[in-house]
Amino acid sequence: MIPFAAPVRDLRFVLEELLDYGSLSLPGFEEASPDLVEAVLEEAAKLAGEVWAPLNASGDRQGCTRRDDGSVSVPDGFSEAYRAYAEGGWNGIGVSEALGGQGLPEVVASSVQEMLHGANMALGLCPMLTAGAIEALAHHGSDEQRAIYLPKLIEGSWTGTMNLTEPQAGSDLSKVRTRAVPQEDGSYRLFGQKIYITWGEHDAAENIIHLVLARKPDAPEGNRGISLFLVPKFLVDEDGSLGERNDVTCASIEHKLGIHGSPTCTLSFGENDGAIGYLVGEEGRGLNHMFTMMNEARHKVGIQGIGVAERACQHAFAYALDRTQGRSPRSGRSDCTISDHLDVRRMLLSMRARTDALRALALTCAAQLDLARHAADDAERAAAQARVDVLIPVVKAFSTDQAVEIASLGVQVHGGMGFIEETGAAQLLRDARIAPIYEGTNGIQALDLAGRKLQRDGGAALAGLIDEVEATAAALEASAEHIELGRSLAGGAADLRAAMALVLEAGADPDPERGADAVQAYATPLLSLAGHVLCAWQMGRAALKASAAMAEGREEPFYSAKRQSADYAIRQWLPVGRAQRAVIEAGMASLAAFDATAH
Amino acid sequence: MIPFAAPVRDLRFVLEELLDYGSLSLPGFEEASPDLVEAVLEEAAKLAGEVWAPLNASGDRQGCTRRDDGSVSVPDGFSEAYRAYAEGGWNGIGVSEALGGQGLPEVVASSVQEMLHGANMALGLCPMLTAGAIEALAHHGSDEQRAIYLPKLIEGSWTGTMNLTEPQAGSDLSKVRTRAVPQEDGSYRLFGQKIYITWGEHDAAENIIHLVLARKPDAPEGNRGISLFLVPKFLVDEDGSLGERNDVTCASIEHKLGIHGSPTCTLSFGENDGAIGYLVGEEGRGLNHMFTMMNEARHKVGIQGIGVAERACQHAFAYALDRTQGRSPRSGRSDCTISDHLDVRRMLLSMRARTDALRALALTCAAQLDLARHAADDAERAAAQARVDVLIPVVKAFSTDQAVEIASLGVQVHGGMGFIEETGAAQLLRDARIAPIYEGTNGIQALDLAGRKLQRDGGAALAGLIDEVEATAAALEASAEHIELGRSLAGGAADLRAAMALVLEAGADPDPERGADAVQAYATPLLSLAGHVLCAWQMGRAALKASAAMAEGREEPFYSAKRQSADYAIRQWLPVGRAQRAVIEAGMASLAAFDATAH
Repeated sequence: MIPFAAPVRDLRFVLEELLDYGSLSLPGFEEASPDLVEAVLEEAAKLAGEVWAPLNASGDRQGCTRRDDGSVSVPDGFSEAYRAYAEGGWNGIGVSEALGGQGLPEVVASSVQEMLHGANMALGLCPMLTAGAIEALAHHGSDEQRAIYLPKLIEGSWTGTMNLTEPQAGSDLSKVRTRAVPQEDGSYRLFGQKIYITWGEHDAAENIIHLVLARKPDAPEGNRGISLFLVPKFLVDEDGSLGERNDVTCASIEHKLGIHGSPTCTLSFGENDGAIGYLVGEEGRGLNHMFTMMNEARHKVGIQGIGVAERACQHAFAYALDRTQGRSPRSGRSDCTISDHLDVRRMLLSMRARTDALRALALTCAAQLDLARHAADDAERAAAQARVDVLIPVVKAFSTDQAVEIASLGVQVHGGMGFIEETGAAQLLRDARIAPIYEGTNGIQALDLAGRKLQRDGGAALAGLIDEVEATAAALEASAEHIELGRSLAGGAADLRAAMALVLEAGADPDPERGADAVQAYATPLLSLAGHVLCAWQMGRAALKASAAMAEGREEPFYSAKRQSADYAIRQWLPVGRAQRAVIEAGMASLAAFDATAH
Repeated sequence: MIPFAAPVRDLRFVLEELLDYGSLSLPGFEEASPDLVEAVLEEAAKLAGEVWAPLNASGDRQGCTRRDDGSVSVPDGFSEAYRAYAEGGWNGIGVSEALGGQGLPEVVASSVQEMLHGANMALGLCPMLTAGAIEALAHHGSDEQRAIYLPKLIEGSWTGTMNLTEPQAGSDLSKVRTRAVPQEDGSYRLFGQKIYITWGEHDAAENIIHLVLARKPDAPEGNRGISLFLVPKFLVDEDGSLGERNDVTCASIEHKLGIHGSPTCTLSFGENDGAIGYLVGEEGRGLNHMFTMMNEARHKVGIQGIGVAERACQHAFAYALDRTQGRSPRSGRSDCTISDHLDVRRMLLSMRARTDALRALALTCAAQLDLARHAADDAERAAAQARVDVLIPVVKAFSTDQAVEIASLGVQVHGGMGFIEETGAAQLLRDARIAPIYEGTNGIQALDLAGRKLQRDGGAALAGLIDEVEATAAALEASAEHIELGRSLAGGAADLRAAMALVLEAGADPDPERGADAVQAYATPLLSLAGHVLCAWQMGRAALKASAAMAEGREEPFYSAKRQSADYAIRQWLPVGRAQRAVIEAGMASLAAFDATAH
């Protein structure tokens, strides 16, 4: 098995050089010094590499098992690995100290998450969902709810879930039908079925706190009738100890393409007397409350894609440096490794450059999240939040689409071995394939970007980012060695600006066919273009930092490799993304005329 | 389960309208009238839809089983479905009448193959490999070998395999080590291990004829020492009856990402006295003989990709027309099917347009194969062969890469359901993923195109195809309704010509780094560009035919849909391919400098 070495060096490059972590000095983060952060990353890398990663393949093979009594067991070793994580205090690193967490910045928490997902994405989903529950309760829970549930969730002895989807309500949550019937004591009894509940039932923690979208019997149709409820697996007594088993059961688990170690459950609420639940936040505001946590969950899914992409790189590089085949034109040697063949190098560098770029962009978004929460100045916080809003759909959708492609290239680098499950490359492709689907499909992300996010501020936040891309392009063009990179990046920025203008124009059109429909038609091409340009921007910044480091004689192999990645990303990868401008400019006639029944 | 309806209508469109099948009238095909061909397609569609397709999902779930005695059983129903195929005479439809086949043109045989692979790719592999063995024996076998083996292989009561790969010899077959020791009676005894042998052992036919690359003990190193041997599973007595079991055994079968119904075997030759084998063709010419059949096998793998892509389209369309979710901006209806959403339409039309285009190109290549074999005129045969040589790597690599993307889009259209194995969309992605790997990886195809095929005639054959693309572009530009298509296609043709010139320039450079290495670096982008342009060309031709039909008032829904596909393919898909010109023009500096150990 190929071991997993968490990419500490590159994470530090992004944090220290691209994000200038040392000078961030946000209020509340005074103690998170660069030295502390480095120590955190090193420790997390050990947990990821030594404890979580070795279980990735065995967890895939074994999968989860639902017993007749409705209980679910996760793969051997997963419970212990989860406990090692919780006991190490990792579950609370991104949670504020006021709530009992360690209050590390999001850039650090995201870095740790990437390592853990790279090590074992199926296991990583468990704390990812818990983080969503913590977020929702911290923002919308009553004082009592926060007092009872948050400490256990933050220490990780209980886990959390998000219960949104029902068979008839997937991307369209307004169709949720689960009922919440008020009781005299102020609690509710829930009745209904939820599907695709990640880690919805398992034996790795003492209790599971389900956050559930449901309707009161008298609630209006549509979104405004949906409220958020907390439904514990085991009821919690007033002293905090566990009481009776609640009326929520796992009816089945799914047989999935990937993430076999993550139990995906159908949960039945109220097969008997009704599942006891408690209203969280305001009645009728369930979707809004859920979106509080979904926005960050989307960022985390992007991070997840990057983790798997990193692991796919490591597999492919290890194989290509070991496998001898063919003759190198360059050396004439007949026992060259396949990494000597330029077509294989193309695949390897494409994987590496994209992974590096996605990481830099996702952590740039995380840094803006930190600013949005903690910057001293109101205007700075608002500006950062506006950027977060634009960046999150890009990070989610672009990172996960690219992760699938990167994992697929990883299979290809292995040749015939790539198709054999024991090799491990195929699992990464299977695992990665869920990420463009869940937490809002990538199509939904694109609509979020091109619709809500862009239209509401007339593109101001994205335009601000494009200004920065242009500044980086100018800096590259000012340097003789990077002039080609600068030109290419400037071209990308111009393409994105032009495409954005078309989407804004469509958005302003009151005619639904030239307006809302056109925004939909352009949404995915626009997101892809934005992803390519913003990633290329980060790699342009990386090239400048790398050249500066090399001029100072620092760590030649790392910075030289970074320059190769940047060159590839901007000159070989960006052009493919730039083509999306032409796709948008070609209009939507064929989509508008499209009749699926005739094809 | 979604039933499979073989795409007879579109196959007929390609044969009758794009290829003008009725006027082909090649020598030897006089009896294959359009009416007969239509009847053949309809009958094949029944076999595909009613017999093969229903076993696709069950075969995937059950997989193959190797017993302790080395025997291998295929999934329930596969043997019967294979026999229905053989007894229906389908195995010989593309084999010349002189050899006992039905002598139908390759365009018809390829159409039938596409249907069968769409129905059940894992099962389709069995006759695909047999066809390779028939081809090799027909060309290179002795009269006696042809008399003994061909009739059984052609009727399908025996199947064939291709034994090339060994653990140390994959893409580089010069490293083959299997030994063939001459015996006094003129036969050989083979010793060695072959891996990844498709349908290498099974219980669906009476005998298996292995064609094996091996070396005589005194053979030189490298390609020139390799000869081709025929090794039957059961020895064949002089009267044609089956004799003793030969010393070739299945040591294991692989646990694969997909095509679970196809047994992929490790075969051990000579664990005891040696596997009795017979030299086929000339000593030391084994690789050449094998490539006789590999060229056509590569075309068939491309066809296979298209079959799976077609099935993915059918799954996705059926789901999108059934699943209600969200509100249509256009109609305002809140119970619209997801096929009303333009972002979903984008995915559906992208899948359909690409599948149509790939089919048209693959059958265009098949028509050139027919001309290369049967045209009355020597020069016409030679010109057709030159086109075949250029088109085959494109059909193989581009169709299979696109098939993976199409199948992945098919998963995405299903949302969460796509990730659930029972839905069936995920299997298509898993199955499709092998096709870019086997029969020469797609990287090898690109090197074949950019290296051997382009360099040896200075690009003449590809330039001839580009001339035809330009002629189609001009015809489109001459029509007011298609002027935009014409401009876009002309731009694509210019890009391909420019990229080809760069690759030819590199190929002429004697310096290995600026020469052979550069050709390798540009190979995959060039093949992708060629695939996009040639597919867009076919869709341009399709648009012209569709408009002509509509002007005559013929079959509005079909031709209207075809025009939508053509519009999408040329205006929304081609631009992505055209970006590959910029990728090539950006040069190869980052690949040349690349050091895999530093990344």
